[in-house]
Amino acid sequence: MACIETDGTGRESAATARRTRDDLLERMEEHLRAFLSAEHELWARVNDRAVGAVDALSELVAAGGKRIRPAFCIAGYLAADGDPADPAVVAAAAALEMLHASALIHDDVIDASSHRRGLPTVHAHHSALHAARAWQGESRRYGEGVALLVGDLALVYSEQLMSAAPAAVAAVWNKLRSELMIGQYMDMTAAAEFSVDPRLSRWIALAKSGHYTIHRPLAVGASAAGRADLAPAFAKYGEAVGEAFQLRDDLLDAFGDSAHTGKPAGLDFQQHKMTLLLGWAMQRDERIHSLITEPGHTPDEVRRRLVDTGVPDDVEKHIAALVEQGCDAIADVPIDPVWRAELATMATKVAYRTT
Amino acid sequence: MACIETDGTGRESAATARRTRDDLLERMEEHLRAFLSAEHELWARVNDRAVGAVDALSELVAAGGKRIRPAFCIAGYLAADGDPADPAVVAAAAALEMLHASALIHDDVIDASSHRRGLPTVHAHHSALHAARAWQGESRRYGEGVALLVGDLALVYSEQLMSAAPAAVAAVWNKLRSELMIGQYMDMTAAAEFSVDPRLSRWIALAKSGHYTIHRPLAVGASAAGRADLAPAFAKYGEAVGEAFQLRDDLLDAFGDSAHTGKPAGLDFQQHKMTLLLGWAMQRDERIHSLITEPGHTPDEVRRRLVDTGVPDDVEKHIAALVEQGCDAIADVPIDPVWRAELATMATKVAYRTT
Repeated sequence: MACIETDGTGRESAATARRTRDDLLERMEEHLRAFLSAEHELWARVNDRAVGAVDALSELVAAGGKRIRPAFCIAGYLAADGDPADPAVVAAAAALEMLHASALIHDDVIDASSHRRGLPTVHAHHSALHAARAWQGESRRYGEGVALLVGDLALVYSEQLMSAAPAAVAAVWNKLRSELMIGQYMDMTAAAEFSVDPRLSRWIALAKSGHYTIHRPLAVGASAAGRADLAPAFAKYGEAVGEAFQLRDDLLDAFGDSAHTGKPAGLDFQQHKMTLLLGWAMQRDERIHSLITEPGHTPDEVRRRLVDTGVPDDVEKHIAALVEQGCDAIADVPIDPVWRAELATMATKVAYRTT
Repeated sequence: MACIETDGTGRESAATARRTRDDLLERMEEHLRAFLSAEHELWARVNDRAVGAVDALSELVAAGGKRIRPAFCIAGYLAADGDPADPAVVAAAAALEMLHASALIHDDVIDASSHRRGLPTVHAHHSALHAARAWQGESRRYGEGVALLVGDLALVYSEQLMSAAPAAVAAVWNKLRSELMIGQYMDMTAAAEFSVDPRLSRWIALAKSGHYTIHRPLAVGASAAGRADLAPAFAKYGEAVGEAFQLRDDLLDAFGDSAHTGKPAGLDFQQHKMTLLLGWAMQRDERIHSLITEPGHTPDEVRRRLVDTGVPDDVEKHIAALVEQGCDAIADVPIDPVWRAELATMATKVAYRTT
């Protein structure tokens, strides 16, 4: 294991490093709250109905979430020796979380998902409101329309937030965003076709998670600190840990407890998502394809059959190897050893999370 | 009429001014084409399926449109004495058109609209593709999901394009975008409630058209040229001409020919849009409300009843007054008289357009 520091000094500075990161994360929360509250005030002065869109977004942001992208952005920034007193990284981290809110709101429409962070999704909530008030038109279209516009607003806000970060982040920020949209597009197309293609599934997992969740947020942080030299090592680390993150996501969706995750279980089956987990399992057992696509089968049948293929166990082994690979990628990178160790801890946390 | 120049010198310089504007508009088209073609190449190298999202966007952009926002941006820039050789205004104009592409794609989902610029809308096209290929899941959800992501991609691209413009445009650009999203949100909510409230209808018309289509594009141009002092006069001009633009839109939707407009006629009735035209008409004739909301009535019945109220004639008079008001607003503003005259011509063109 290349990335564990064991001496006493290491322990103390590790605690300091984490405290600095957690302080910045807390400042990011405050920045998001203040930004959304200023927007609420602004629109409330214009027209009292206008605040509905801002408030829908605020509720989702306030409902929590894992804040993985801001955490990696801040870790990348501090590992690159960025000044914790500079507000730029707080704005960049907030921008990443706001972009994520936009992606979740739109993704939940695409997946027809009912819950997110333990609350009804934006579209589900507004469809229900429309139905309860017996308004004109179709409730589904209304709810999805609201979610579409609230997600658009979040996308605009994310860019406003990012504009306070140094210009050096622009290249990676642009890449991250177009990659997210195109990754989602390919995910949806692959689900519609539902043909087994592990190479494509892996590409989608990389675009949607490897890059979007870990690699590029780290790179945004490093760029904000002016350390473009860290990009190649952070790319390797981020891609490996990001793939581990996505594989855990697949396992949690298939076998997790929706009371913990705050979203329904088995959605990937229902939406015919061609995940790596399912792609590999179907290569070993063709029957799984029809268990998912043909009516009359329960998610439990799919689960049992998945376990029988042995793929979930192999995925666990693969996750462990990816974490190791991520740690190796940053073994020799010129950063404070404290941050090398902390990035290893973060890799383990995302790979073995339960929500 | 405050804004007509009649001397011979005026005619010659007016021709030069228009040529400069048209050259810049042509450069904007080329910039959009080059940007989208570079994105196509980039994604084609990554994965051959990835280009589908970029190509869907390119088709809409290539299908034409009136380019009203770029034209006002460029006019605002040239009126403010901006250097035509500076590429910044080309990028800003392209960003406005790209944002508009995003808004159209998402708006067509919200309105369940079948055609745009004479082509099937993005969601309609991809729903049909899904159905024809008998893919997994629901065709409507798939088509709308593609449109959602393609619109998101356009929104990201619009910001990438705008980043080449001077930092001075940021404030008006941010305002324009959040106002667009919130204006659309309120438009949708007003349609769902369908209660007559001309004050609200006017606010929505101002947000969606007054600001978005005329005022803020002009202000983006003036800011790019470093002339913040023109903002108040351009605001008055833009709000008046923008309201005229929206009223013409209402009339074209109600009485226009879909062969000319490239989109279906009578969509506002179908979608229960609480336009200014309908709001005023319903204040005079309550029966119009039920003709629109109750099944079994044809658009022709609504049209006849609308004409009987006399509102369409009054709207024509109001449009004329708004054009006059727009011209008056820039009568004394310190810009080249050639541009004052050209802005008057542009006001007349948008107010009396037939598509």
